[in-house]
Amino acid sequence: MSLSLNQRTTKRWSVAEAVEGCVRHGLEAVGLWREEVAEQGLAESVKLVRDAGLRVSSLCRGGFLTTPADPGPGTSDTSGQASGGTARRAALDDNRRAIDEAAELGAACLVMVVGGLPGVRPGEPLPADSDGAGRSFSRDLAGAREQVAEALEVLAPYAGERGVKLALEPLHPMYCADRAVLSTLAQAVDLCLPYPEEQVGVVVDTFHVWWDPRLFEEIARAGGRIASYQVCDYLQPLPADVLLGRGMMGDGVIDFPPITRAVAAAGYTGDVEVEIFNADVWAADPNEIVATMKHRYAQVVSA
Amino acid sequence: MSLSLNQRTTKRWSVAEAVEGCVRHGLEAVGLWREEVAEQGLAESVKLVRDAGLRVSSLCRGGFLTTPADPGPGTSDTSGQASGGTARRAALDDNRRAIDEAAELGAACLVMVVGGLPGVRPGEPLPADSDGAGRSFSRDLAGAREQVAEALEVLAPYAGERGVKLALEPLHPMYCADRAVLSTLAQAVDLCLPYPEEQVGVVVDTFHVWWDPRLFEEIARAGGRIASYQVCDYLQPLPADVLLGRGMMGDGVIDFPPITRAVAAAGYTGDVEVEIFNADVWAADPNEIVATMKHRYAQVVSA
Repeated sequence: MSLSLNQRTTKRWSVAEAVEGCVRHGLEAVGLWREEVAEQGLAESVKLVRDAGLRVSSLCRGGFLTTPADPGPGTSDTSGQASGGTARRAALDDNRRAIDEAAELGAACLVMVVGGLPGVRPGEPLPADSDGAGRSFSRDLAGAREQVAEALEVLAPYAGERGVKLALEPLHPMYCADRAVLSTLAQAVDLCLPYPEEQVGVVVDTFHVWWDPRLFEEIARAGGRIASYQVCDYLQPLPADVLLGRGMMGDGVIDFPPITRAVAAAGYTGDVEVEIFNADVWAADPNEIVATMKHRYAQVVSA
Repeated sequence: MSLSLNQRTTKRWSVAEAVEGCVRHGLEAVGLWREEVAEQGLAESVKLVRDAGLRVSSLCRGGFLTTPADPGPGTSDTSGQASGGTARRAALDDNRRAIDEAAELGAACLVMVVGGLPGVRPGEPLPADSDGAGRSFSRDLAGAREQVAEALEVLAPYAGERGVKLALEPLHPMYCADRAVLSTLAQAVDLCLPYPEEQVGVVVDTFHVWWDPRLFEEIARAGGRIASYQVCDYLQPLPADVLLGRGMMGDGVIDFPPITRAVAAAGYTGDVEVEIFNADVWAADPNEIVATMKHRYAQVVSA
């Protein structure tokens, strides 16, 4: 296993700067984000990573597959949010584009954050059950999970044809309502199994799964399905915006070596991405963050 | 099943006021907290609930069984926090007192919040790995879980002799570090099974378990082990202090009727406690809160 910089850790860096930073710090791989790739330009991003000789350990991210039902006849959606069948088609189309981009970049996987309850927007207050604009949200968690499974039936073959592996990421249960109804590694592994291993795998992200009483059994069961191993710490207490509770390894409560050993024992030989969403990390000099990340990885994470 | 007021929902009310409030609003049961019972006086609290003809649906709470290891020789603990063997003995003694109080009150169960990682205090920043006062914290999650199982071996027979049922409460995984290393219903049920059903059961609290992909299977497996059913909603987004993310039923993302039906189908016939930690609820008139709670219970929670 070798260390990779997920570019969201150095949020201020463009793709070009992140690639340059990886080379300067002797890293062999980088995890990219679609937004930054779009800003840099896809073709230019491909050229940058190839010229630098870097592996693309992942592209973040596809997903958000859970869409509200069609509004009834006669309602009009003035909110700008696509609804029902339209929203579903738009979500699938966007994921096909993400798969195409991952293929272009030669990314080891496309990370999939599957989406929360239909109509609940990440980090935002709940919409009123009906706000007069045809928008609402659904509390049907089982139905949302079913939508994810159905979307996978469409997307997995599409990814397979392009040599892209979808990496289903279970998110911490505190994000179940607004970001991912995929909440445990067990659930992610179950979703994978109907598909060939090269088409659908799972992400093991320490922040999301460290608490799971079944973690070690499920890592073993995942085996060759582990498509990405991401590390960062779980801060205590969480900051006001819980999305930013991801900390530098060693600053929180996670005991990394047993998890790293388990992932290795399951057969994972890919890159280990450090992905930190954290206001202090984002405010610091990205070069110092990468230096700290390398030091902490050696000190705290490797088995 | 019948509605019960957990007195923490009406935080400003003493035991006497909560008892009076329950009677005024036609409720048959109340869930009490040890702190408020101590302020009222145990004997006086017993007399108040008996005279009012109320059931005590639970006493909150025992637990916090995960204690730091003994400091090495030559270290002195000037922090006022007991350590190691001393801390373990103090925790067990406190739980025996809680069991005695539950017996006096005739509580249907003693709710157990088992504690987080040893040395991590609820809601507080992590102590330095060594702060010069002999304090530190542990990242050994498996070890903490083992401590809970060991403490139960001591406490379950003690509770059994006094006719008290311990109700193990799995807490939402976001509280794993600082409040409860018991994170799923499956884990709680597994911990119960070695003991007689009248000694150890589980709490199903909608806030803590709503996201669990195995929820319905585990409620069915719990069966007669369900010692308490607590309801409140899960707010989105969470407030800055995640402890206060519990909302009035209907204000969040939880679909209650399927959970209520599953708990009933598992054989639970006890009281349904509404337990809300929420700054707005605490700021409101407690009488209005109880009225709203009754209305929402009928509208949103019952199956």
